[in-house]
Amino acid sequence: MSRSSAPTLEDVARLAGVSTASISRALNDPDKVAKPTRDKIEAAIEALGYTPNFGGRALASNRTNTVGAIIPSMANAMFASGVQAFQEVLSEAGVNLLVASTGYDPDQELRQIKALIAHGADGLMLIGDARPEATRDFLAKRRIPYVISWCLRSDDTRLYVGFDNRGAAYDAMQRVLALGHRRVAMICGVRDGNDRARDRFDGVAAAIADFGQGAELLQVEEATYRIEFGGDAFARIMAAPERPTVVMCGNDVLAAGALKRAREMGIDVPGQVSIVGFDDIGLASVVTPQLATVRVPQIEMGRAAARLLLAKLNGQACSGPVELPTEFMSRASLAPPAP
Amino acid sequence: MSRSSAPTLEDVARLAGVSTASISRALNDPDKVAKPTRDKIEAAIEALGYTPNFGGRALASNRTNTVGAIIPSMANAMFASGVQAFQEVLSEAGVNLLVASTGYDPDQELRQIKALIAHGADGLMLIGDARPEATRDFLAKRRIPYVISWCLRSDDTRLYVGFDNRGAAYDAMQRVLALGHRRVAMICGVRDGNDRARDRFDGVAAAIADFGQGAELLQVEEATYRIEFGGDAFARIMAAPERPTVVMCGNDVLAAGALKRAREMGIDVPGQVSIVGFDDIGLASVVTPQLATVRVPQIEMGRAAARLLLAKLNGQACSGPVELPTEFMSRASLAPPAP
Repeated sequence: MSRSSAPTLEDVARLAGVSTASISRALNDPDKVAKPTRDKIEAAIEALGYTPNFGGRALASNRTNTVGAIIPSMANAMFASGVQAFQEVLSEAGVNLLVASTGYDPDQELRQIKALIAHGADGLMLIGDARPEATRDFLAKRRIPYVISWCLRSDDTRLYVGFDNRGAAYDAMQRVLALGHRRVAMICGVRDGNDRARDRFDGVAAAIADFGQGAELLQVEEATYRIEFGGDAFARIMAAPERPTVVMCGNDVLAAGALKRAREMGIDVPGQVSIVGFDDIGLASVVTPQLATVRVPQIEMGRAAARLLLAKLNGQACSGPVELPTEFMSRASLAPPAP
Repeated sequence: MSRSSAPTLEDVARLAGVSTASISRALNDPDKVAKPTRDKIEAAIEALGYTPNFGGRALASNRTNTVGAIIPSMANAMFASGVQAFQEVLSEAGVNLLVASTGYDPDQELRQIKALIAHGADGLMLIGDARPEATRDFLAKRRIPYVISWCLRSDDTRLYVGFDNRGAAYDAMQRVLALGHRRVAMICGVRDGNDRARDRFDGVAAAIADFGQGAELLQVEEATYRIEFGGDAFARIMAAPERPTVVMCGNDVLAAGALKRAREMGIDVPGQVSIVGFDDIGLASVVTPQLATVRVPQIEMGRAAARLLLAKLNGQACSGPVELPTEFMSRASLAPPAP
């Protein structure tokens, strides 16, 4: 089976008994083609299984009605419901979504941006703000409309639809300190190339520094977002001479790993140590005890990002940033420290 | 900011001081262009942020080095690690992956297939085997190479890389019956348009029928794959006059929902009822009690699907189906029924 035998525009023209120009017109500007001719063309396209070549359509309309989303990872549902909501709003507007993932690799992100543009994406959704100058330059030169989600900056001309990672982490840490915790450890995501991981760490560290009163950040472990790595980091933290009374985690996947390892080590949560996550993915409320965490407005964010990008693609004036609220979800994995 | 001001081939030609034909040659057949000319062209492309239009490249090489994967859902990590593994093998071969999702809607699947082909995908990975005749026809006529994953058929000329959903569910049910369970309920996925959900149900039902000895399938509840719907189905099952001693679930998301609801209802698992999942996603081993489930070989399947599709794209002879083994993971949510 070879692609060279795929049906061509000429095959359709021959079968329909019309010119290739008529077919282009029928595809790009159907009102200019008489109904009987259009019917013949449609029948021939259907019979041959012909797909109009995107290149040709894009040249005619300068719009392909396709948008790309480039996300760090498809695993662990961290971006899934946001992307799903993004797709639903696009879909209602007749716009198709293609998704690519980067594995948190900035070079891979640039390759994916180039690939999606080359494959005809009219606009993009990107996650976070940590990208090399080369990527920013490319986006600027290419003049491709894009929105940035999952983070927020105000000192910028780009379009942000997101939430304040640092502020949400600061708020969560304040609440934990107010419960009486003073000895804190953190399992954070890999901060290099990930502004969300960095902002969440900064928020926790700043809240502890501002609080004073003997509160200390005893230990910080960086871990890739996988359940087992969260568990390994938890084990390292609990092996230290001075144990924390609470472990703040950069996301729920790490927190679920910590919780699982605590059980395996016979450490009671929250009796001996509290654990706090971030994101409020589905996982957070099915584990035992349920995870205290920060709810990220994934669905609202995906919808708002789609609406903003559609507005921009339609040439409307767009104002940003769009800030969405997070919410601290107090659940059973968090309790005051043992007296 | 408008797409009409994006740099064109002509802009690159002007800046580099060469003809547009030279640029096409440099992009498509670089060995035929002198190094100094290529350098000038590359510098101009870089300076302008120009992206070669996919249409043109595809016409010249008849290959875009892009493959599409169309999956039912991005949520719940059900397909995530398989798609990730698929992408890794493609990436090593210099092939890019674009992903689209269907929300389990067959019409949407056909639209996504057409979109990916129109955007230049050389080949596709599809999930499962339940698609309308129109889609099969289209794929055949369009002569697009594709592999089907997450299921297995032998009486077919298509390329399958998957596992035996029915056989794995049959085996799981046999093991549960051997523990002494006789009163069984099932929470299965929506079977219409989903051959995996159907096969898993069929396997459970057949194992019960074949076993005899008073074993009964008391109740079957269909539910969309969401944690809360799994919980709702569990509540309906436990509200019946005759309660089962085990609830078999069509996947881990439904099982996690059942487990969560059991806890909320004060029903002990596995003391009062056992719960069995399917898939062995990360969720299964972080819940308490850990979920007994069927491990689906997602990573091996993704890798094998990529290798097979690459072979096919390179015109090599391909043999199928590729069958991968599943494994029953006996964990704490499953125990013999109370005496």
